[in-house]
Amino acid sequence: MLPAFREDGRVRDLADALADVVGREHVLVDPETRAGYERDWTGRFGGPSAFVVRPGSTEEVSSVLLACAERSVPVIPQGGNTGLVGGGVPGKHDSRADRSHWPSPPAIISLSRISTLEPVDTASSQVTAGAGVTLAALQAAAASAGLAFAVDLAARDSATVGGMVATNAGGLHVMRHGAMRSQVLGLEAVLADGRVISRLDGLVKDNTGYDLSQLLVGSEGTLAVVTAARLRLVPAMHEQVVALLGFPGTEEALVALALLRRRADGLQAAELFYDDGLELVCSHAGIPRPLVHRWGAYLLVECASMNDPADGLLEALESLDLPDDATALATDAPSRARLWAYRELHSETVSSKGVPHKLDVTLPQGRLARFEAAVREVVERAAPRSTLVLFGHAGDGNLHVNVVGPDPDDESVDDAILRLVISMGGSISAEHGIGRAKSKPWRLFLNPKIPRQGPCY
Amino acid sequence: MLPAFREDGRVRDLADALADVVGREHVLVDPETRAGYERDWTGRFGGPSAFVVRPGSTEEVSSVLLACAERSVPVIPQGGNTGLVGGGVPGKHDSRADRSHWPSPPAIISLSRISTLEPVDTASSQVTAGAGVTLAALQAAAASAGLAFAVDLAARDSATVGGMVATNAGGLHVMRHGAMRSQVLGLEAVLADGRVISRLDGLVKDNTGYDLSQLLVGSEGTLAVVTAARLRLVPAMHEQVVALLGFPGTEEALVALALLRRRADGLQAAELFYDDGLELVCSHAGIPRPLVHRWGAYLLVECASMNDPADGLLEALESLDLPDDATALATDAPSRARLWAYRELHSETVSSKGVPHKLDVTLPQGRLARFEAAVREVVERAAPRSTLVLFGHAGDGNLHVNVVGPDPDDESVDDAILRLVISMGGSISAEHGIGRAKSKPWRLFLNPKIPRQGPCY
Repeated sequence: MLPAFREDGRVRDLADALADVVGREHVLVDPETRAGYERDWTGRFGGPSAFVVRPGSTEEVSSVLLACAERSVPVIPQGGNTGLVGGGVPGKHDSRADRSHWPSPPAIISLSRISTLEPVDTASSQVTAGAGVTLAALQAAAASAGLAFAVDLAARDSATVGGMVATNAGGLHVMRHGAMRSQVLGLEAVLADGRVISRLDGLVKDNTGYDLSQLLVGSEGTLAVVTAARLRLVPAMHEQVVALLGFPGTEEALVALALLRRRADGLQAAELFYDDGLELVCSHAGIPRPLVHRWGAYLLVECASMNDPADGLLEALESLDLPDDATALATDAPSRARLWAYRELHSETVSSKGVPHKLDVTLPQGRLARFEAAVREVVERAAPRSTLVLFGHAGDGNLHVNVVGPDPDDESVDDAILRLVISMGGSISAEHGIGRAKSKPWRLFLNPKIPRQGPCY
Repeated sequence: MLPAFREDGRVRDLADALADVVGREHVLVDPETRAGYERDWTGRFGGPSAFVVRPGSTEEVSSVLLACAERSVPVIPQGGNTGLVGGGVPGKHDSRADRSHWPSPPAIISLSRISTLEPVDTASSQVTAGAGVTLAALQAAAASAGLAFAVDLAARDSATVGGMVATNAGGLHVMRHGAMRSQVLGLEAVLADGRVISRLDGLVKDNTGYDLSQLLVGSEGTLAVVTAARLRLVPAMHEQVVALLGFPGTEEALVALALLRRRADGLQAAELFYDDGLELVCSHAGIPRPLVHRWGAYLLVECASMNDPADGLLEALESLDLPDDATALATDAPSRARLWAYRELHSETVSSKGVPHKLDVTLPQGRLARFEAAVREVVERAAPRSTLVLFGHAGDGNLHVNVVGPDPDDESVDDAILRLVISMGGSISAEHGIGRAKSKPWRLFLNPKIPRQGPCY
């Protein structure tokens, strides 16, 4: 069936026309060269494309979009292809879509060649980056100007500015600096009919009309293809301190966090995990437990500042009045990394137990403790002999819920957890977006018939 | 002509219908009771309304908007009526508008009664405030929870949350915390047909669809009437230090500012002014000049932190290698206020010289020095014997351009300045919005025929 599409005259004509625009070598029609673009890095999502086109400039993106629109060929913009919800690759069944409407599988538009990174504007602490610039390249440029980019992700070597804008990428420091949205001063983007909109002037204050750049952030390529972004940079904070704190439970951990927010200068991360997960991590990695005694809930906090933030954190911790054996502090880099490992090894540890059901949810901060208790009950009921591992970004109310045990294709436990999230006024997608993975849960999310709690005070 | 409108049966019926919704005492039809709502506080803008209606809840706003829409009566939402561009009051000529389209002058919808301020959510450092809550009330609530609201304005006792959201209000600390936009986690608002949209759950991370709340920020009531906002609060920063620095000119001041951005912990304000303005301020207020020698340009910087930021600022200043007589430092509150007065007395001083032409513009940070030189030439040419006073928020590239001399009704100097701003890639409205005052310059701004410089690196 697929070859028939590819032999379709219109698609062949389009590929030829685009070759005139971007160069023959940047229109990939062979299945072998296309393959890397047609499947996401997790291997869970993917499907056939008509071809892959790699424009090298905003003007070329404009010509490509216009040509595809004129021939009704659907398009999928793709950045570094590191997304977790399959939003940047074709669907398994896209080639079977209604041919009266779509004459072919989608064309993938890879933005990776639009990788111009302008010099850092040190006067304004800003930089203009093409959609294909990787996070690592952006971070390096900021660092060489004595500045930093506020968002950091594990996929930094592949994740691109365009994709991070389109998905409003989050990460570890959202509680201090906000997500990608907060870093965007303006965008250049191409609409479906080829028109270019642009606000790259870097004006910090500009109250002349709607902020269309902000509308595009997190829109996942449904409104326009982002080709460049004007981004704010933040001062580099070289002085850091990390503390691991033990608490009887989530409630106590969150009370402490609320106090640290008000008193610990430069607080930029507050990660939460639990004793069952920590036990698995320590035995999987063969590392010693971090504190003498066991605690119900653990908080890993990090402060960063231009001046040494350790005294400030110590003072704030004293006001918490924690027992001696509930605190581990690290100032030098190796010790800080050792404490971070307890949090960071959670993902790897979970995957070593089997194929996990992974959910990425946010709760109103004031309901996080109740959610933790409730989700344990829900999973116990829906999948009695499974392993539940919870961890996440406590500072953002963002929990990663991992369940190992139920068949990967059995969605009943996911469904039960998401219904709980929705009923408690939370979000079914904290930082990963909708893409293909969440389109079904999203319909659940939008269902007004599920009763949910109102605002949280 | 106007009485005829007011006697119009449809408008009278509408007022009666709304009285059933909000209570008779909250539909103001008498010219005397309407007067305070029909004119802005500067006295420059205003015009007759059909009536003023003061709904007390979101549901009442919904009913009011639906009823007005059904009868094609235009509406103007109004907050604290402290705007500077006449966006919250009827226009002088609204009553002469095309009657085939609008059967009456606009109805003013005052949001002042929607003033519920929920308890501060200390777990998340957030609060939900009704549109009519004043900035002062919001600040007081935050302070009593050991937190602060990041935006501050001189009009704090009257300015309301709804108006500040609708105009994306700025202020002194934008360089650190962003404008109103950056404080908004979500909004409740009513569309023109009475439908209510609401995102007050305070989720820090939620990537499920377009962020419509952000689209409403700065939309000046053109898309919806904001009835409540979920706002982030920031830690209270009680330790403060202020320094006044003298430089040969703007270029040197901005180089120093770029370095302070990277090295001065907690930098939150950087205000710029000039020797001619300072001279006028000192003689107007009868206060001594702040530094022994005269300098071309002055920078007033403020750092605030949980821990004392003075040492950090001193260290950063040392690396600037300024002459001894170019620096004045203040740590105690009275001394800080004395230094701030040199900047804050600029507005009052300018007004004492006559009715000023006032422009509020932003330039790309890297072009601010060139703009300063160019605007002096432009004003010298357009209004040779006038007094030009420049001051503003250097950290945001935001200058307030004041010209005293030309007749207040003669717009040629304003026009010349705005054309310069546009040609240099700046914005004609930094923080005040479009409203009525800027609608004509805005058309100039949108004119693609004015050549302008591209992005600034």
